[in-house]
Order: sequence, then C-alpha cells, then structure tokens
Amino acid sequence: MNIPRFALTPGEPSGIGPDLLIQLAQTEYFSQLQAELIVIADPDMMMQRAATLGLPLQLGDVSTNDKRRSNQSGKLNILAVKCPEAVIPGELNKANAPYVLETLTRAATGCTRGEFDALVTAPLHKGIINDAGIPFTGHTEFLAELTKAKLPVMMLAAKYQTTNNKNNELRVSLATTHLPLKDVSSAITKRSLAQVIEVLHHDMTTKFGIKNPHILICGLNPHAGEGGHMGMEEIETITPVIESYQQKGMNLTGPLPADTLFTPKYLDTADAVLAMYHDQGLPVLKHVGFGHAVNITLGLPIIRTSVDHGTALDLAGTGKAHLGSLIAAIDAANKMSQARL
Amino acid sequence: MNIPRFALTPGEPSGIGPDLLIQLAQTEYFSQLQAELIVIADPDMMMQRAATLGLPLQLGDVSTNDKRRSNQSGKLNILAVKCPEAVIPGELNKANAPYVLETLTRAATGCTRGEFDALVTAPLHKGIINDAGIPFTGHTEFLAELTKAKLPVMMLAAKYQTTNNKNNELRVSLATTHLPLKDVSSAITKRSLAQVIEVLHHDMTTKFGIKNPHILICGLNPHAGEGGHMGMEEIETITPVIESYQQKGMNLTGPLPADTLFTPKYLDTADAVLAMYHDQGLPVLKHVGFGHAVNITLGLPIIRTSVDHGTALDLAGTGKAHLGSLIAAIDAANKMSQARL
Repeated sequence: MNIPRFALTPGEPSGIGPDLLIQLAQTEYFSQLQAELIVIADPDMMMQRAATLGLPLQLGDVSTNDKRRSNQSGKLNILAVKCPEAVIPGELNKANAPYVLETLTRAATGCTRGEFDALVTAPLHKGIINDAGIPFTGHTEFLAELTKAKLPVMMLAAKYQTTNNKNNELRVSLATTHLPLKDVSSAITKRSLAQVIEVLHHDMTTKFGIKNPHILICGLNPHAGEGGHMGMEEIETITPVIESYQQKGMNLTGPLPADTLFTPKYLDTADAVLAMYHDQGLPVLKHVGFGHAVNITLGLPIIRTSVDHGTALDLAGTGKAHLGSLIAAIDAANKMSQARL
Repeated sequence: MNIPRFALTPGEPSGIGPDLLIQLAQTEYFSQLQAELIVIADPDMMMQRAATLGLPLQLGDVSTNDKRRSNQSGKLNILAVKCPEAVIPGELNKANAPYVLETLTRAATGCTRGEFDALVTAPLHKGIINDAGIPFTGHTEFLAELTKAKLPVMMLAAKYQTTNNKNNELRVSLATTHLPLKDVSSAITKRSLAQVIEVLHHDMTTKFGIKNPHILICGLNPHAGEGGHMGMEEIETITPVIESYQQKGMNLTGPLPADTLFTPKYLDTADAVLAMYHDQGLPVLKHVGFGHAVNITLGLPIIRTSVDHGTALDLAGTGKAHLGSLIAAIDAANKMSQARL
C-alpha cells in the first residue's frame, strides 16, 4: 500500500500544537486516515502533555526507511528532537525557541529529499523566537529560505459547496499579505502581480491537479476602480497583466469588484480566487471556513499546509483546543499529495 | 389601521426599476404587506412596461391626504411625474434624466414633511444624469443635500441567523465608501471616524430601536495592525476614538481584525459592524446576502432604503429581474418605520 507520509510539526511546545496531535490520535479520523503521520517533536514533552490532558498516548519510534503504515489509534509515530528545557503549557520559554526551528528544519528537509510527501504545521510563536535572538518573520518565509523558493504565495482554503456543485472548496490567495493597508497599492507592480499569478497557476495545476484552472482576480479599488473613477491601478497595472496571461492561454477572469466576486455567479466557476490584499479576501474565507480553514503555502517545492489559527497559549493543556483546522490541513495535504502522485 | 406609507421611486426608467415594481404588484408578498406603497413615476411609462412584460397592471391615482390602505394585487398607487420623452427599455436617454431627479425630490420632500414614513429607491444611472449636464454623484449625496443631512453613512444589511439566534440580520456600515484604496488611510481621521460612529450609534438606536447597540469595529490594517507591527492607524486614530466613546458608555468592541470579526464568536454578539472601507466589509455582506441585500442610508432625517444592485439595462422589459433585493428594501423600511413609530 503506497499511502502518503506526512511530517507534522507541533510548533510552539507551550501552545496547543502538542495537544492537537495528541487529541487527534484518539479520533476515528486518525485511525482511518489513508496516510502515515510522523510527528517531529520531543517525546518527553508529548508524553507529559498527554498526562496533563488525561489522554492515553503511545509513541512509536520510526525511521523514514520503514514501510509506510497507516495509523493506530492512540499511537503517534515520532521522530525525536529534544527540547532544551522542560515545557510548561501556556508558558513561553525562549530557551526552547531553537527547538521549534529544528523540528521545522528536519521536517522540511525531509520533504525536499522525499522522505515525506508533505509538511503539516501547527502554530509557532514568532515573538518568542525573536526574543531568543533569532530574527524570524514566520513559518512561510523560513520555509521559503530553507527550500530556496523564490516567491511563497499564501492561500487559505475552506470547504464550500458551490451552488452548481462544481467545487467543494473555496480557495483564496493573496497578492500581498502582511502589509499596512496604505502600502498595498505601491506594493503591487506588474512584475509582482505577474509572479504571484504564475505561482498560483503553476501550483493549481501541479499540486491541485487542475488542468487550466479558472482563477478569479479582484480589483484593488472599490468596484474594481469603476473605469478609473475610483483608482487607476486596475487600468495601469492589473488589467494589462491579466490580459498578457490570457493571451498566453490562462483562464483568468478579472479584475472583478471584490463584493461581486464572492457571489455564486462567479464562485460557481472558480478554481481559485486571487485577492489583492489580506482584508479583501480573508474575511469571506474565514466567515465561510470558520473552524475548518487551512493555510496552504504555494510557491514552495514542497507541499505545506498549516492550521489557520495561533498558539492559543491559554488553551494549552486544557483539552479545549479544536481539531477542525488541523484535520482540514491534513486533508488538504492528502488531496494535494494524491493529485501530485 | 395605521399602517406605514412608503414612497417608491423606480429610478432610471429604461432600467429594471419599473419592471421590479410591476412584478412586485403581482406577488402575494405585495397584497399581504402591512404597508401602503406609493410609486412616484410616469403612469404611461409604467403601463407601457407592463405591456412589454405581459403583466396585468392597474394604476390608482392617490393623494397622500387619502386614508392609508393596504395594497391590492396587480394595482399600484401612483403619484404622477411625467417623463419628457417616451422610454425604451434598455436605452438610456438623457432627456429623461431630470425626471429621475424630480421623482426623487418629490419622494424625499414627502418624507421630510411626513407624507411618507420611508423612501425605497430602485437604481438610477449616475452616468446618464451627468451626461445630461447635471452634476450628480449618487442617490445618497443627493438625498443628503435635499434633506440637509450633515453626514450620510452607508449600511448594507442582509438576513443572517447568528448561531445563538440573537440576531437575524448582518448589518455592515462603512467609515469610508467610494475612494481609491490608497486614499483610505488618510481619509480616516479621529474626527471623521467619530462622526461616523455617532451617526451609526444614533440611528441604530432611533431607527432600529436597539437600546445601547453593540457595534463591532474593524481595524484598518491586517490583524488590526498587530500592535503597530503592520500599521499605526489603530494605535494613533481608531483605538483612541473607540475608547473615548466607550468611556461615554457606548457598547463598542474593536479595533478587531476583519478576518476574525466576521466569525460567530463576534457576530453572535453584534447589532452592527463598522468596516473601515468598502472591500473590507462588503464582500462578506454580499456573500451572505446575495440577491437579498439592502442598502440603508443612515444619517438622514428620513428613513431611506434601496436595492443593492444596478439598473441592469439588459434585463429591462424581459421579466428576468429578481425581486429579492427590492423586497428586502421594503422589509427594512417597514421594520425601521415600526421601530421608529
């Protein structure tokens, strides 16, 4: 049985990442999953968290040379990376920051050399890594550098049934991500937009297995500028780029007004949406996908999916963390691995 | 029976406005509505459109001195304003532009002097009015000037059931409306934001009848600026204004990240949402309320609701126009009139 094998990183050890994996191991979803999950983490920390949660846990040492096996209820296969100091749920400790990056590095290099088919990440805490003296802007940038990717592109996806049953997933990518709003317009150039469209189109084809994907593209301004009455970026930047790729045969539609794009007339035809900036695309996506949205990094040579939430330090060790987004992240990794295989 | 009386303006006569009213007159909704509708339009144009649509129509001359009566199926009460030239469905004619403004003026002055309890507008066409040599930026600005309102505030609303059944409507107002995205940040000052919050709070209380309304307020930047890491407007402008009104006892929450705000945890507690700009708030609203969203102008001394769509010239005379948004606009006017009475 050639099932896919995924590396899972629990991220910040004092957050809910370890809890999620331990809780996951108890579910029917886990034992029926047609994929092997390998957790890259500190075994002692995992066992302690299971005790805190009052959940049964077995850990299985594995080698990635082993035959791939499906999961056994209550048992996590683990590749051990040691935490320098003992972990207290809810309490950040900068002594453990290098550990977080070590687990990520192990997982990502494993993906690049084919040990794993995908990487699924639980949340880390940017602040504590920086506090530890390690300059760090986020998972995405770290993985891009590690895998020598030119341009990572952020996509969020959530289950969503179109009215015509064409598609069961809403996928929104962003042309710009974590910028002040006033800097968005100048950050979008013909060149930057072209690169994002190329990555999105490429990954929709190669990672999602969708031939000639239909991509809807938002304008930047209200009503997509309304013919220049409310901003010129559509005329000067966005439309020329879209047209140049349409001429090369890409199935792109836009620039569309964002408040028109997210209605059935358009979404029913879409394989993906490209929003120009964070708050243009993500409020709809998170509204639709509350509790089960998944963050996918396009533009990497590896498949990487992630939960869409933070470390929730206050929930660590309580058993109250929700599995929805982690399951969505594993499902997305699974679908993409199958489409790619 | 003291039912409310509404003025309805069909707007651009070559668009779908007349169609919508004629189609409406055939519905069970219309004959059962506990409100009297008075159409302000050209009677010949209305009869011709009914003939084109193949729908039965009677017109009843009314005076606003008459006793209020509920509607009779297939019959529209009309206050006649004559169109200068015959109307051809789908063909804009600038000779008829002054007529459109005359119907609006009649309706709005009727509202200010108490003949009508609310104004419900169908779409007009800004371009043709300007082409006719009349400087015109939109319904909202025209009505604000006519009624001497200081600051009209745009709100869109749509049916939406919160998970806790607190509220059955999502209401989103905007701190800025039809501006290029790059001008949004500088358009939001402490003063402008304070004025918008005052209008919103005032109208939620007086027009919606909600005591101490809970208003959720978006940040401007992604993640509401994340403590200044992605923009300073939250710290310098938005938070101080919110805090000053909280100290006066207003029930405001924010600034919240827009992609968090539109999830049940927050929406379940909200009477209204204030987004900082068009494409931050309206994509979710239109996604939720596709085909039945209503545009409400706050800050006027009158109640004014409107459909949320355009003139759809290509559908005029075809019978294919959808009534959802008009019915939502009448329902909203009705609820607000009752809350106010």
